[in-house]
Amino acid sequence: MGGEQDREREEFLRVARRAREAAAGLAPLPRAAKDAALHAIADALTAAAPEIVKANEADVERARESGTSEHMIDRLSLTVERIAGIADAVRKVAALPDPVGETVRGNVLPNGLDLRQIRVPLGVVGIIYEGRPNVTVDAAALCLKSGNVAMLRGSSSAYESNTVLVGVMQAALAGTAVPADAVQLVPGTSRESVKHLMRARGLVDVLIPRGGASLINSVVEESTVPVIETGVGNCAVYVDAAADVDLAVKILVNAKTQRPSVCNAAETVLVHEGIADAFLPKALAALRGAGVTVHGDEAVRAHDVAGEVVEATEDDYYAEYLSLDIAARVVGTLDEAVAHIRTYGSGHTEAIVTTSQAAAKRFVALVDSAAVMVNASTRFTDGEEFGFGAEIGISTQKLHARGPMGLPELTSTKYVVTGEGHLKGQTVF
Amino acid sequence: MGGEQDREREEFLRVARRAREAAAGLAPLPRAAKDAALHAIADALTAAAPEIVKANEADVERARESGTSEHMIDRLSLTVERIAGIADAVRKVAALPDPVGETVRGNVLPNGLDLRQIRVPLGVVGIIYEGRPNVTVDAAALCLKSGNVAMLRGSSSAYESNTVLVGVMQAALAGTAVPADAVQLVPGTSRESVKHLMRARGLVDVLIPRGGASLINSVVEESTVPVIETGVGNCAVYVDAAADVDLAVKILVNAKTQRPSVCNAAETVLVHEGIADAFLPKALAALRGAGVTVHGDEAVRAHDVAGEVVEATEDDYYAEYLSLDIAARVVGTLDEAVAHIRTYGSGHTEAIVTTSQAAAKRFVALVDSAAVMVNASTRFTDGEEFGFGAEIGISTQKLHARGPMGLPELTSTKYVVTGEGHLKGQTVF
Repeated sequence: MGGEQDREREEFLRVARRAREAAAGLAPLPRAAKDAALHAIADALTAAAPEIVKANEADVERARESGTSEHMIDRLSLTVERIAGIADAVRKVAALPDPVGETVRGNVLPNGLDLRQIRVPLGVVGIIYEGRPNVTVDAAALCLKSGNVAMLRGSSSAYESNTVLVGVMQAALAGTAVPADAVQLVPGTSRESVKHLMRARGLVDVLIPRGGASLINSVVEESTVPVIETGVGNCAVYVDAAADVDLAVKILVNAKTQRPSVCNAAETVLVHEGIADAFLPKALAALRGAGVTVHGDEAVRAHDVAGEVVEATEDDYYAEYLSLDIAARVVGTLDEAVAHIRTYGSGHTEAIVTTSQAAAKRFVALVDSAAVMVNASTRFTDGEEFGFGAEIGISTQKLHARGPMGLPELTSTKYVVTGEGHLKGQTVF
Repeated sequence: MGGEQDREREEFLRVARRAREAAAGLAPLPRAAKDAALHAIADALTAAAPEIVKANEADVERARESGTSEHMIDRLSLTVERIAGIADAVRKVAALPDPVGETVRGNVLPNGLDLRQIRVPLGVVGIIYEGRPNVTVDAAALCLKSGNVAMLRGSSSAYESNTVLVGVMQAALAGTAVPADAVQLVPGTSRESVKHLMRARGLVDVLIPRGGASLINSVVEESTVPVIETGVGNCAVYVDAAADVDLAVKILVNAKTQRPSVCNAAETVLVHEGIADAFLPKALAALRGAGVTVHGDEAVRAHDVAGEVVEATEDDYYAEYLSLDIAARVVGTLDEAVAHIRTYGSGHTEAIVTTSQAAAKRFVALVDSAAVMVNASTRFTDGEEFGFGAEIGISTQKLHARGPMGLPELTSTKYVVTGEGHLKGQTVF
């Protein structure tokens, strides 16, 4: 075993060093070179669709044998049509503006030095994700477009698919100006292989874990590579005393049910006591009609004419259900709603429904989340909706990027300072 | 011992929770409230100068007894005049623009949603630093101005001084709209107390270690709180084949000697072989005249008429001397200089001296450092020089902030999305 582990680690380091080397070659390439490479990848994926489907069938068969749910198997499965869709997404990334080289700020300093802060790639971006092989291509394309090398570590359940997908992408790159090593799969499927990635400080510049809270927590705990946390969403809708009741019901139902399995779906509704009598009967009926189980506090249950509201526990307030469940609580004030969110929320997205300008302003000021919605569904927190064209994830941390991350969030900056012989502490020349 | 450690940890958590609470109160305060608090702090520091000096004398005496160098004792020492200077620096911070609330980007989305990305405070900022008590006040002021609570962990050598300084600041805040708990000293002087700060994920939002490479490495290794690495500077000056020799000598001597003990001082000079014969005799003479010991490779030593160049080892190329020493090496090409920097540099600041536009462009494109100087001294990488008005440190990492960090780098952002009942997946209303 020790020998096997050493071998895996050596193999990882070999791959990571090639990634590092490729990053130096990729970073200064102009947009045209990167876009041509993305089109080559898209074409190659389409051409290799039968081969990809075959590898994917092996993954799917293995998943079936191990009793994986049909829902997960659907996420894992690739067809020729889905591969065409993935290739199209790559072409869409090629069409997006290149963030690299953008001048973020620039001015001439009083001493005549020309100061410019310009966007540069991060370098090598490690991405840890679940069993959706389309992420393998999406993430690689977004990294490549932003001048970054992708070190991909997908779920072991999709290893065969990912191996072929990365192989096809590398072969496509071999005929372009982008180094073939600019897309890398972390070798191996063991838990150790994730650890190698987390300890690769100096070789990997940033790690983006995409997945459940436990994956993300373990990466944050163990990684010496800087991490961008993504995606855990315990989002709340607060219905203010001054809300339009019908609007509030519509927003709540949309936020909860339009797609319950995603991170920007609502998991909690907080109702101002001043509107509880008017709002709760309609809301509970609408949620019931949409098949939602409500986990309510005593005040909510007092309005439960159908007798279907479950008693809420502390765990319900913390829960990211990702299902047709919602926690519900009556609060005395807007500030109490904010305090609830501060205690139980995940800092993803919160919404207020109100007709009061003052209430909206206070909620926006006090709620410390990546996105705050006023009279809109929480479901709008999304790179595509925000007009970013693509999204590598939704950051719930405060450092570097917060909220939906598009291409600019995959860059760093560099100061370029141009003088004419400027010396510190001396009048020029 | 176990009991003592538990007590210290409990005390830490008590302080950190108060900091967290204060962060919620501080974040939404308008500029005027924060500026008034900063002026109250400045006035209180001036008024308490005798008390501060007395506490500082205890630290200085202890440092003397333990054989601390006079250089370090000078950094540790406070006088009434120095305290007046520190108070003035706080007033200067008050005069800077408030980064909080700034709209970073904003537009109306096709569906009519109003999208704005605005600057918000990070929350609680932990700062770990060395034995300069002025940093206690500087860091607190910068954090406060940017709406952040400062959790300060200075050197144990300055603990008496820092305790009094923080006490004076907290007392000053008690009479203002800013919570008194917005400035906190990490309790205790043990190594454990640093660990508490590094493990305070959820209570502390970011850690900024300021100090030597070993401190910063240990924080990066052990911290579960996101870290901004600062300050290690192994900066190189590359003298291109097309350089003006006299200008190159001036820039090199300035970069090395104008203040050798700081992170933006040059530690390495790389000389293109095509200019070595013209440049090295003058450069070696000028460096010798300035009291600099050169650690040169064979090609450099071939020009050493005075016989004073020391043989360079691999360690010299890695060294951040912070003294009147410099590593010197002849390279065959610009790309070889870039490769040297990639291998040995710390990603802080590199300079090229050249009259060639093409060489400057290539160097800027290929060098992956926080700042790249063209025909200017490395010493210009500095928040004050860049016009930021103040600086909390110089980041050498790529995530969040890179290069000199001013007030905007102490902020995160939040998306505020305003609709009129917008529902996902439906035409509006």
